[in-house]
Amino acid sequence: MENTILLLNGPNLNLLGKREPTIYGSQTLTEIEGQFVEIGSSHGLQVVCAQSNSEGALIDALHAHFSCKGIVLNAGALTHYSIAIRDAIASIEAPVIEVHMSNIHARESFRHTSVIAPVCRGQISGFGSKSYELALLAFLNE
Amino acid sequence: MENTILLLNGPNLNLLGKREPTIYGSQTLTEIEGQFVEIGSSHGLQVVCAQSNSEGALIDALHAHFSCKGIVLNAGALTHYSIAIRDAIASIEAPVIEVHMSNIHARESFRHTSVIAPVCRGQISGFGSKSYELALLAFLNE
Amino acid sequence: MENTILLLNGPNLNLLGKREPTIYGSQTLTEIEGQFVEIGSSHGLQVVCAQSNSEGALIDALHAHFSCKGIVLNAGALTHYSIAIRDAIASIEAPVIEVHMSNIHARESFRHTSVIAPVCRGQISGFGSKSYELALLAFLNE
Amino acid sequence: MENTILLLNGPNLNLLGKREPTIYGSQTLTEIEGQFVEIGSSHGLQVVCAQSNSEGALIDALHAHFSCKGIVLNAGALTHYSIAIRDAIASIEAPVIEVHMSNIHARESFRHTSVIAPVCRGQISGFGSKSYELALLAFLNE
Amino acid sequence: MENTILLLNGPNLNLLGKREPTIYGSQTLTEIEGQFVEIGSSHGLQVVCAQSNSEGALIDALHAHFSCKGIVLNAGALTHYSIAIRDAIASIEAPVIEVHMSNIHARESFRHTSVIAPVCRGQISGFGSKSYELALLAFLNE
Amino acid sequence: MENTILLLNGPNLNLLGKREPTIYGSQTLTEIEGQFVEIGSSHGLQVVCAQSNSEGALIDALHAHFSCKGIVLNAGALTHYSIAIRDAIASIEAPVIEVHMSNIHARESFRHTSVIAPVCRGQISGFGSKSYELALLAFLNE
Amino acid sequence: MENTILLLNGPNLNLLGKREPTIYGSQTLTEIEGQFVEIGSSHGLQVVCAQSNSEGALIDALHAHFSCKGIVLNAGALTHYSIAIRDAIASIEAPVIEVHMSNIHARESFRHTSVIAPVCRGQISGFGSKSYELALLAFLNE
Amino acid sequence: MENTILLLNGPNLNLLGKREPTIYGSQTLTEIEGQFVEIGSSHGLQVVCAQSNSEGALIDALHAHFSCKGIVLNAGALTHYSIAIRDAIASIEAPVIEVHMSNIHARESFRHTSVIAPVCRGQISGFGSKSYELALLAFLNE
Amino acid sequence: MENTILLLNGPNLNLLGKREPTIYGSQTLTEIEGQFVEIGSSHGLQVVCAQSNSEGALIDALHAHFSCKGIVLNAGALTHYSIAIRDAIASIEAPVIEVHMSNIHARESFRHTSVIAPVCRGQISGFGSKSYELALLAFLNE
Amino acid sequence: MENTILLLNGPNLNLLGKREPTIYGSQTLTEIEGQFVEIGSSHGLQVVCAQSNSEGALIDALHAHFSCKGIVLNAGALTHYSIAIRDAIASIEAPVIEVHMSNIHARESFRHTSVIAPVCRGQISGFGSKSYELALLAFLNE
Amino acid sequence: MENTILLLNGPNLNLLGKREPTIYGSQTLTEIEGQFVEIGSSHGLQVVCAQSNSEGALIDALHAHFSCKGIVLNAGALTHYSIAIRDAIASIEAPVIEVHMSNIHARESFRHTSVIAPVCRGQISGFGSKSYELALLAFLNE
Amino acid sequence: MENTILLLNGPNLNLLGKREPTIYGSQTLTEIEGQFVEIGSSHGLQVVCAQSNSEGALIDALHAHFSCKGIVLNAGALTHYSIAIRDAIASIEAPVIEVHMSNIHARESFRHTSVIAPVCRGQISGFGSKSYELALLAFLNE
Repeated sequence: MENTILLLNGPNLNLLGKREPTIYGSQTLTEIEGQFVEIGSSHGLQVVCAQSNSEGALIDALHAHFSCKGIVLNAGALTHYSIAIRDAIASIEAPVIEVHMSNIHARESFRHTSVIAPVCRGQISGFGSKSYELALLAFLNE
Repeated sequence: MENTILLLNGPNLNLLGKREPTIYGSQTLTEIEGQFVEIGSSHGLQVVCAQSNSEGALIDALHAHFSCKGIVLNAGALTHYSIAIRDAIASIEAPVIEVHMSNIHARESFRHTSVIAPVCRGQISGFGSKSYELALLAFLNE
Repeated sequence: MENTILLLNGPNLNLLGKREPTIYGSQTLTEIEGQFVEIGSSHGLQVVCAQSNSEGALIDALHAHFSCKGIVLNAGALTHYSIAIRDAIASIEAPVIEVHMSNIHARESFRHTSVIAPVCRGQISGFGSKSYELALLAFLNE
Repeated sequence: MENTILLLNGPNLNLLGKREPTIYGSQTLTEIEGQFVEIGSSHGLQVVCAQSNSEGALIDALHAHFSCKGIVLNAGALTHYSIAIRDAIASIEAPVIEVHMSNIHARESFRHTSVIAPVCRGQISGFGSKSYELALLAFLNE
Repeated sequence: MENTILLLNGPNLNLLGKREPTIYGSQTLTEIEGQFVEIGSSHGLQVVCAQSNSEGALIDALHAHFSCKGIVLNAGALTHYSIAIRDAIASIEAPVIEVHMSNIHARESFRHTSVIAPVCRGQISGFGSKSYELALLAFLNE
Repeated sequence: MENTILLLNGPNLNLLGKREPTIYGSQTLTEIEGQFVEIGSSHGLQVVCAQSNSEGALIDALHAHFSCKGIVLNAGALTHYSIAIRDAIASIEAPVIEVHMSNIHARESFRHTSVIAPVCRGQISGFGSKSYELALLAFLNE
Repeated sequence: MENTILLLNGPNLNLLGKREPTIYGSQTLTEIEGQFVEIGSSHGLQVVCAQSNSEGALIDALHAHFSCKGIVLNAGALTHYSIAIRDAIASIEAPVIEVHMSNIHARESFRHTSVIAPVCRGQISGFGSKSYELALLAFLNE
Repeated sequence: MENTILLLNGPNLNLLGKREPTIYGSQTLTEIEGQFVEIGSSHGLQVVCAQSNSEGALIDALHAHFSCKGIVLNAGALTHYSIAIRDAIASIEAPVIEVHMSNIHARESFRHTSVIAPVCRGQISGFGSKSYELALLAFLNE
Repeated sequence: MENTILLLNGPNLNLLGKREPTIYGSQTLTEIEGQFVEIGSSHGLQVVCAQSNSEGALIDALHAHFSCKGIVLNAGALTHYSIAIRDAIASIEAPVIEVHMSNIHARESFRHTSVIAPVCRGQISGFGSKSYELALLAFLNE
Repeated sequence: MENTILLLNGPNLNLLGKREPTIYGSQTLTEIEGQFVEIGSSHGLQVVCAQSNSEGALIDALHAHFSCKGIVLNAGALTHYSIAIRDAIASIEAPVIEVHMSNIHARESFRHTSVIAPVCRGQISGFGSKSYELALLAFLNE
Repeated sequence: MENTILLLNGPNLNLLGKREPTIYGSQTLTEIEGQFVEIGSSHGLQVVCAQSNSEGALIDALHAHFSCKGIVLNAGALTHYSIAIRDAIASIEAPVIEVHMSNIHARESFRHTSVIAPVCRGQISGFGSKSYELALLAFLNE
Repeated sequence: MENTILLLNGPNLNLLGKREPTIYGSQTLTEIEGQFVEIGSSHGLQVVCAQSNSEGALIDALHAHFSCKGIVLNAGALTHYSIAIRDAIASIEAPVIEVHMSNIHARESFRHTSVIAPVCRGQISGFGSKSYELALLAFLNE
């Protein structure tokens, strides 16, 4: 799995395009995943995409990629309280980059705290679907 | 789905009748759902009932009723920390009324905060199984 | 007084219809009281309506209905700090339902706390003038 | 007014005897005032008794006794938030003793703070109607 | 009422001249009101003066001047907790300027917070009786 | 021991008369104890006096008077943090009255909280050495 | 089910042996469960073992053992925020012992709070896999 | 320097007219300073104007006017955290009036606290460029 | 001292059997110590028992067992504030297990924090006198 | 200036390469700026680089690029308290991306809060000198 | 006692040399006291040394040196919560200098607060055994 | 630079002798620097003195003495919020001793916290100009 990147999206991101378009834009998740796969391929990476509204399923997905090259994770609202996902990230060997489409630091105060940030390699937030792409580039040429 | 009302119950509410009857009464969830369906029918509404102990399944249910007439939601303990359910409510078009059988404001202090309240249309708490019925009436003649 | 319901409104609610209509609607308090009396009458109840901008007068009114059938109370801004009203509610025998026209949980954070909620039977908020009506229904068929 | 003592009671204390008798006992306020006057008289003091549920009326009463010998004040729930009564006490020359029938430090946490305490001469709480008597004795032989 | 200015003073300000003169000076409220009326007249304004120790009466006074030219309000200690007065200010059309004779930001920490400030046009504090005059000038030539 | 009252003083109270006389007066502890014994005797009570700077010794003294008629306790600074003394008070049968010579509510904020208050019968503070006498009177004629 | 003990493990404990071995040791969960079953059998108990990364599945498991002899629960990170699991524990009749392999009180501050502790019979933390064994022993000879 | 008034503006106020005109208006700082000088001159005062984006330079300016007649200071964002400017104000003899064009109490909560307020003579906020003028008038006829 | 276990009890535990038996049971400390010694002997351990109401004496006892096999410590109320005992535990070589008879996490909130926990090997709470026994077993077969 | 990107570094970043290399790496600021300019040029952008240890100078630099294409800002420690820089960012038209070399969310808690984040377009942290490059890429193809 | 200096050490400092040598160094307390006495003698001072693990004994020692030339106090962990020692310091006439071997401000956050600091003349921390010597020098040539 | 000591003073310390002499004494900074240089010389040290009211200039000065023998720093009010100075101290190799003339722990609560203390070698406060001298002595004979 040394050449694999996991793109993992959490709760409500399946509604992208339908959900609050002024905040999240009009692209669907399928479109974003498609672009992401394409860019990964162009750099010779194998990209796996997954989404779930369930904390448990997200943890399972992280475990299943215990030692892949890297994980791009948008944990959605779970970012702010899921210590279980934090522990999953700390438990695996693969590096994880935390991604947010909106600038979480500019929204409600409860979105300013990320319980997963301290165990991630870094955080990218505020660039819409481009946030995913920047995270992918961060894994290249390390 | 314009004539459909979803009655959605969260964790531990499947134990109604068995669980702490001094707080929650002796009616079972099935009995409560039966009454609710009956009242809805008498007003010409189609009522769907669902219950889950899983946050992810509750989010899936909310998404599945994206544009129904209204949702009566007792999120149980998730009321107090599930920002993911909050985001699900904010993401869909259907209006949601938050319901509690007990008066959550009269119990332990951690039950005084509802993270979903700011995105619901209103809150009804403290009237036992009658809380559900009042929420249904709130959707009528709008 | 066993058949009497008191509808008691606190500070600034006398301005209904004039005050911030985007939040509180365009109905006047007199109109709301009229509808309330009518619904109460149709269920065989005697309804008394009162409003005051003074905490002391509201406490006097609560004392004066020590053992009536029920009290529907919109304490307005006093909801958030009047421990004296809280003690008045706890001191009398009549059950009190706390009502708010707006969804107080969706407004400024200082409106999220109700000091009277722990001694009320329940809370209904967010349904405009319909909040009063739902509270009345909650007292029926107990 | 150099020989006058004011016994001033705040909101809900007019219900003594009727209100939560397990906390406040079964004596009425009239009975307590009667005993208080009698003890005062036996020490050659003129005692004035007053009670109001209104913060404004209590402030007026304090002002009206600007330079009496002493004031025994049970401000009831206003003890915990009425900075206006605090300022009234600080503004007058008469010394004020804060009295509570119940032990406020053993009840709900919001009753542990007295905003008037810092400007009173002292505080006596927890001795039922005897609290008033002890305050009266505190003014003697100064 | 387009030419009317209301000068409204809250609890304990009737004691000006008698109360803590090192903080509040030796002028009486009547003297201050007299000067205020005089300055107002010299600018062609009709000035109404009122004072009360009761929150309810202050709210009534604000309502009674729903659409006057401007209100100069020293709410005294109520500044720090009366959300009901805040709502009254927000409910009326007349602009309100918050005034304090002492510099409230240099006194006890509980005086640093004004719950009415967010709905007032501005705040002037620390200039003794001159604070009132400056507020009056602020309403001129707008 | 049914006729015995324990007068128990905590840390630094042995310095009374020497220590900060503007706060604590010029009477020595021996003088105060003498007066206390005298008043107790005049009411037919046996009074035992003790003082220690050690939390452990104070707890031992409380245990040694497990079922006496009453204990008048000035725990000094330990009032504010000694949960061990609190537990000792809760563990014994004798009622305990908490006493302070100064008005602790008017001093530094860390003196406003008493960890022993919730398990004492009542609190008397602010009357100098007279605080002890008032506590003694509170035990009479119960 | 009177003779049954449920050993229930929460999120990320399936990684034991792989995950942060300096904190959690090198034994796998299967090995720990094996030892646990063996000790239980030697005391004549029937032991059931389960693990899930999903809050909902853990609640289902608790419900399914509503009236067994006892439950040994290591809720993992959910210990610190799952009020839903807390309610599940409070809702069933079987006693639950909370177990942690590491000393949670010696780690990050967010691990010092257990929202489930108040409804468990007791807590054992810090003894590695021996924590489970001690919990089992606690259920014997009651 | 007994006839000199310093008008001192802090960070970002040089952008007035360009910066967020809905909050700060369209006048430039030069225009405001011009008006201020003119009014000062008409009252026989010598006015000096200065602006800097640097905390150190502002402190230097305050020191340089150690004993002038008065200083009108809009410290901009430094109002909320510059204890160094607070100490500079406390260190000099000239009285300082704190001025804000916007009503800082009606904006983000971090703007509600002024660390310089306790050492200023008074505060004027919310009147746009007129705030400066009112401060100037406050220095007259003292 | 390599074979010695110290059983050390803090303030008020000498009252066991007499003190609040609904919380702490009816066994005396002597009985509990007797059982503890017996179990220790059956495993070939030398057990020393000590109790004190004095923080200083408890620290002395910990120092005196600097390098024994293990210490079972119930620090009573000192658990919650004695940083001095915490430092004593950190200063010695012997491992210390923190024990509580009641479930401290289910009682008043100030009992939820243990300042000694971070320097102990582990914590066992909630099993009555059996808590001591479980701690002893935790030291075996390490 | 429509084609200009400003790379702006705050306090202590001039020590890069010398300062805590385990956190910040061994590259000097000059080297990082060189790479940044090169990448910018390759995309047809004009890059300006600046660094200062002074808050005032940084604000001046932001003002000087009022309407450039974009600003990449590493404000260093000022990130956490400089509301003046925040206001500067909000005052100019150019979009600003907040950059950190280390993952600030994984360091001391006072570094978890960025007072400038709410007015920046987005935040990138944790990728060493690559953080700057990712920010540059974020400005392309918008 | 005008020529006497008291060197007073609190809990666990008797273990110096044995206790956590990476923090506290390898010198024993006896060695440090010896050096301290020697330096004092060389300046013509009489030095008394004392150490106790008991708060009460430390207070007794402070009282016993009510009016000596000066006291060098390392209160150990009691620094952070012993208000009783604070009161003892405030009660005596001798000036007290607070000393710490380690830099308490660089350790756990609960060590950053000293409850005795406000009543001491000054604080010296972080210089190992040299902290004591610097405190001695601070008393010379006053 | 191995023999150089930097004496660095922050904002407002240039006013020593003029500023609040009851707190800071009547010596000017020049006099204090003179004494400091003299003592340093007598120990064979080269002393450099600097003062600035600007945070940036202080950081520059710290950088300029990257590897000197030691730095005696009185950062004035910046002590309490300048994380940038903290980072500068942590970034250089020279050890820094934090010095305050007044006892900062005995003044306003916002002065009790030093953000630079955790990265300094030690702290000396409360000895007037002698604080500087003690810091110098602390660097000798290390």
